[in-house]
Amino acid sequence: MSAGQSSLPIGVFDSGVGGLTVLKELTYRLPHESFVYLGDTARVPYGNRSPETIVRYALECAAFLAQQQIKLLVVACNTVSAFALPDLEKLLGIPVIGVIRPGAEKAALTSSSGHIAVAGTAATIGSGAYQRELLARLPAATITAFACPLFVPLVEEHFLHHPATELIVAEYLKVLEGKSVDTLLLGCTHYPFLAPFIQKKLGNKVALIDSASACAEKVAQLLEEKNLMNAFFPSSCVYYVSDDPAKFSKLAEQLFRVPIPTVHHPILNIQQQLAF
Amino acid sequence: MSAGQSSLPIGVFDSGVGGLTVLKELTYRLPHESFVYLGDTARVPYGNRSPETIVRYALECAAFLAQQQIKLLVVACNTVSAFALPDLEKLLGIPVIGVIRPGAEKAALTSSSGHIAVAGTAATIGSGAYQRELLARLPAATITAFACPLFVPLVEEHFLHHPATELIVAEYLKVLEGKSVDTLLLGCTHYPFLAPFIQKKLGNKVALIDSASACAEKVAQLLEEKNLMNAFFPSSCVYYVSDDPAKFSKLAEQLFRVPIPTVHHPILNIQQQLAF
Repeated sequence: MSAGQSSLPIGVFDSGVGGLTVLKELTYRLPHESFVYLGDTARVPYGNRSPETIVRYALECAAFLAQQQIKLLVVACNTVSAFALPDLEKLLGIPVIGVIRPGAEKAALTSSSGHIAVAGTAATIGSGAYQRELLARLPAATITAFACPLFVPLVEEHFLHHPATELIVAEYLKVLEGKSVDTLLLGCTHYPFLAPFIQKKLGNKVALIDSASACAEKVAQLLEEKNLMNAFFPSSCVYYVSDDPAKFSKLAEQLFRVPIPTVHHPILNIQQQLAF
Repeated sequence: MSAGQSSLPIGVFDSGVGGLTVLKELTYRLPHESFVYLGDTARVPYGNRSPETIVRYALECAAFLAQQQIKLLVVACNTVSAFALPDLEKLLGIPVIGVIRPGAEKAALTSSSGHIAVAGTAATIGSGAYQRELLARLPAATITAFACPLFVPLVEEHFLHHPATELIVAEYLKVLEGKSVDTLLLGCTHYPFLAPFIQKKLGNKVALIDSASACAEKVAQLLEEKNLMNAFFPSSCVYYVSDDPAKFSKLAEQLFRVPIPTVHHPILNIQQQLAF
């Protein structure tokens, strides 16, 4: 790529607000880079939809981000990372980095017993993507993968400290009873918000792993390798959502305690090119 | 309308599986009629989206149902009924019946004290539609309207008898403490599945009202008035969804204990005409 391309922003795509966990790590690790974030809030959540619908939505959103002239796409959504990376690379012709491989690498390095659990959306778990990536690194690993479909709505509704959430966490974690897991991979960007309840239930001997920082590290490596690092200030971040910008700002502020004053609503642009 | 039109099916539209509560009452009340059901499972839930997005999705789905040659549209979704009825009537040129007015009428007739509560999605409650319809019938009513955003995911995940659900029901119903409500309108098709916990919390002196049977009665009246009743057997029901048909069938069977063997997936037809 040319020197000009290194000054282009990095695209970050998620089904909603959860991908901001990844964006936060990216801006921390890569302070000179600019970012364009797209949250598909008009169609969130993706985690209970079919693989065909997830791929279609991902391609539509990526086409919008491609119009913004990005040099690299980070797929911050685990569900999309599980199904759509090859299609996205083919469509965009730029590097595409998901969160599943970095998360699996980190979990494989963390686990000493090789007994690893993976929590994710129904679609992510059903794809087997984490299981495959873990086994590729630890062929003798014992993996327990399970879906936690209520975690996303609980986080989105800010039931982070509620006794009902503690009961639901306990319900989903029942599957780990009697298993000597030493590492739990939080395979959805929303799940780290429930880490206190999860850690409390599992005890301190189980390491909780999320993909955000590992993904940011991977992005940094790739930019270095491809000579795509941006050397110029100032960096910036532009936010787009497919539904109400005010709701996105509010939830982002509640969850991340940082203000996101300006969020754009690109629905008219998107309507030109996208199908239902 | 001509005699031929009376033999056309009735369209029933919902964002997902919840509208089957209304379809059940319709088939019971109108055994000679045929139905075409559309659940927009690729974009469910609607209840947290913006009014603009809800109206757009409703128009897109209605355009699909119009292609199926229906004589009347029943909007089984409270959220859509709250925002899109005038636009749908204008688009379709056939009678359109929602669930809000029939539900409000029933609640107004049921309440003796005039202290009425309404539970619904954030969008439905935010629209003020139930509040307006109730006040039009009982101008001196005292209305407490509140959103219960976690009820839909709890029902969809079949957490119908779980202690966590009981805690979440109690949390949302806190708003009624100290209020002498005698009637609670369940302003979302999913909420009747949580009626046991709601009734337990509120006690037997509070009447729980849902719109399904009242809506079916309204449809019967309108067919009579417009001379659109179907006199011919056999009746039938065709199901369409915008995402995975198997998932829809499974959830419908879990919730309604009736098999729905054949569900169509009209995504290709819809793609021709619909925008993101």
